[in-house]
This record gives sequence, structure tokens and C-alpha cells, in this order.
Amino acid sequence: MNQSIDKHAVVLLSGGLDSATVLAIASDCGYRCHALSVDYGQRHCSELQAAENVARSMSANLKTVKLDLRTFGGSALTDDIEVPEVEGEGIPVTYVPARNTIMLSLALAWAEVLGACDIFIGVNAVDYSGYPDCRPEFINAYEEMANLATKAGVTGRRLVIHTPLIDLSKADIIRQGTELGVDYAMTVSCYQADAEGRACGACDSCRIRAAGFAEADVSDPTRYKS
Amino acid sequence: MNQSIDKHAVVLLSGGLDSATVLAIASDCGYRCHALSVDYGQRHCSELQAAENVARSMSANLKTVKLDLRTFGGSALTDDIEVPEVEGEGIPVTYVPARNTIMLSLALAWAEVLGACDIFIGVNAVDYSGYPDCRPEFINAYEEMANLATKAGVTGRRLVIHTPLIDLSKADIIRQGTELGVDYAMTVSCYQADAEGRACGACDSCRIRAAGFAEADVSDPTRYKS
Repeated sequence: MNQSIDKHAVVLLSGGLDSATVLAIASDCGYRCHALSVDYGQRHCSELQAAENVARSMSANLKTVKLDLRTFGGSALTDDIEVPEVEGEGIPVTYVPARNTIMLSLALAWAEVLGACDIFIGVNAVDYSGYPDCRPEFINAYEEMANLATKAGVTGRRLVIHTPLIDLSKADIIRQGTELGVDYAMTVSCYQADAEGRACGACDSCRIRAAGFAEADVSDPTRYKS
Repeated sequence: MNQSIDKHAVVLLSGGLDSATVLAIASDCGYRCHALSVDYGQRHCSELQAAENVARSMSANLKTVKLDLRTFGGSALTDDIEVPEVEGEGIPVTYVPARNTIMLSLALAWAEVLGACDIFIGVNAVDYSGYPDCRPEFINAYEEMANLATKAGVTGRRLVIHTPLIDLSKADIIRQGTELGVDYAMTVSCYQADAEGRACGACDSCRIRAAGFAEADVSDPTRYKS
């Protein structure tokens, strides 16, 4: 561990498996972590409780911002559209329009106030290839834009968007987080988890998660509804 | 006027002079306008009422999104920092970290849900050159990013960020809006307007606005506190 109190980072934390791993990675790299969680009216609001537990367990400073994306609608995660058990071709109905762009923009605002030049996000190009805002070319373009949007852009400092999971399989993510001591029992991945964070076991996100634990040969601590 | 019901646009509407003019321009170009106003905890919350009045007067569909940027702080517009009467060198204290990035991201989410490819924002590179997120290079980078962030990016449609005021002086903006019938009495520009929308007459924004009306030789309908 390379601890320095001068390196601050904003880490987007949903309370899911991926972002918990990202927080552990950023901490392990020596960043003082400011975790940002967004209450956007998601169906799976037990995620927010999970984010709180995960942040506390890693001694990160947590802010939860309320921004009701149901105002716009357009996703099975915020609307009254059924979450499918098997995704079809193209962009999944669980895609939330412009979600990562919005989340990164909130992280950018906080980073600017903190004077932090590092933002971490747990996007992954392997398991979620149907989401346009998880692609490396999106992240690169975002970083470019962010450096023109903020004081950093006029003072010569460089903002960096870190995506340590982008090329990892779910199993690799779980292996890396397990090595770093992440307690995955605290995390919620299910798109329709109940209030206690128990998973459905049937949605796309549940199936990818379960397969990841199996492939990583790590015991799966997920709590299921039945 | 080039009316077509199939051209939808999202227009960021603050309730100020610039964005009211932008809404008039977008309407005049034949767009069916969806105006987006953000309640971000600004000191000058009479702006929100102004946005409502302006949208109604131009028959635009209005959504107001609540997103409390005071959570992050860092600006005289949201914090308990005094708004200066004369701005110094560099980035003004009235700059709100990442504000335009956040606003555009919310507009992007709505545009995606509406299937709209056009977003209008009233940034201006002349009068506000101290704000990094008003520069043309920022807007270009944002547009690039937005096309990778969304469904548009994978379906081959092109999202465009329109900035019809970017090269105009305040006087030019007022002239153009006046020709299009904008009622500037409805708009609020003051950073510290009272609850009825009456302006202080002393802040940077008030002075630029008053000088604009004078230069345009248009009678100034601004209501002042005293």
C-alpha cells in the first residue's frame, strides 16, 4: 500500500460488486477516497444502504446525492417496465439514459471542489457491452471533455478518469476484490433486490454475478429472496 | 418560422435573459421545445419561477429537476460566500463547479428518452469568458462525448449541442430576443435577486445586463430592489 494523505480521489459507489472493488483498488493505490452514491430513484434502493456499509467498511468519506431520474424515465431500472430474465440483442432495457455521464458529472463537481484530479468508476466493457456509456471510447471522450470543463483545464492540472475494471471479467474482478479484502456480502447487484438487499437470482445482473463467483472459485455470499 | 412537429429539442432554461433568448431561437427554428430547469439550490431561486413563466409564454413543455449542488459547495452562487460587485482576474467565485457539464448531462438524459437529437444551451464566450465551461472547445468536446455516451452513438444518429449565443454580445442577444418577441421583464439575471425576482443592480450579472440593454438601445424592463 502506498499511503499518502495528499492524493484525493472521488469514487463512484453504487453499492454493487464492481464499485466496491473499485473503492478497494483506489484505497490500495493510496488515495484518500471520497465515495459518491446517487439516489436516482432506482428500483433496487437497497443498493444505497449497501453503498453506505461498503464506504464505512473501507473508511471512505461518503456523500449520497438525490437526483430523481424517474423524471425522465426510459429505463426498466427506474420505470414500471419489467426487468427481463434474459436480455435480447442491442441495448438492454435496464440501460438508464445518460446515467454514467450524469454520475461522472456529479463526481467531477465534487472533485473540483475537493481539488482532486482523480475519479474512479467501475465500468466494465466485458459483461456490459450493451451499454454505450461503458465503452473505453466514451471514457476517453469524457476525460477530454472534463479537462476543458473545469478549472483544471485552465490551470494546467490533468483530471484522470480511472476505470480499473474495464477489461476484467467478473471472475477477475471478484478475485482482485477478494485479495483486497472486499466483503461482497455487503454488496447488492440484483436489479430487483428487496429492501433487505436479497437478490432475485434470475435477472441478468444476478446471473452474471453468480457465474463470476463460480468461475473465480470464490464462495458466493449473495443472499437470495428464497 | 419553419414549424415541424417532428423536430424535438431540449433547451436548458435558467430563467435568465440568455436562456430565454435561446428558447425563442429554438422555437423560431421550428423545434418543439422541451425546457429543462434545474433547482440546484441557487441563491437566486426566483430564477425558477422566471423559467416557468418564460416556458409558459413560449408554449414549451417544462421539467424542473431538483439536484442540490450545495452538497458539493465551492461557489458563491450556492454557498455562503459574498457575491462580489466587481470580479477580479481568473475564474469568478460565482462559477459553480461543473455546472454546465451537469446541466448538459441532464438534458442529454431527457433528449435520449424523447428521441431528440438537439440540445440548446445559452453559453456565451464573450461576457463570461472566465467560466471554463462556456468555451467553444468545451462544447465541442461535450458533443463528441455525448455521441459516444448514448444510444445515438451506436445507432448512427448525431446529437448536436446548439449554442446560438456563443459569439454574441449581450446587446446582440437582447436585439435578437426582442425581434423574436421575448418578454425580458419575465427574466431574472441577478445573482442575488429577491423572492419576487427584483435585481440588486450591483452584481456582475446585473451590470452586464443593464449595459446590454443600453447598448442595444432597448428599454430595460428589469425590476430593481430599490
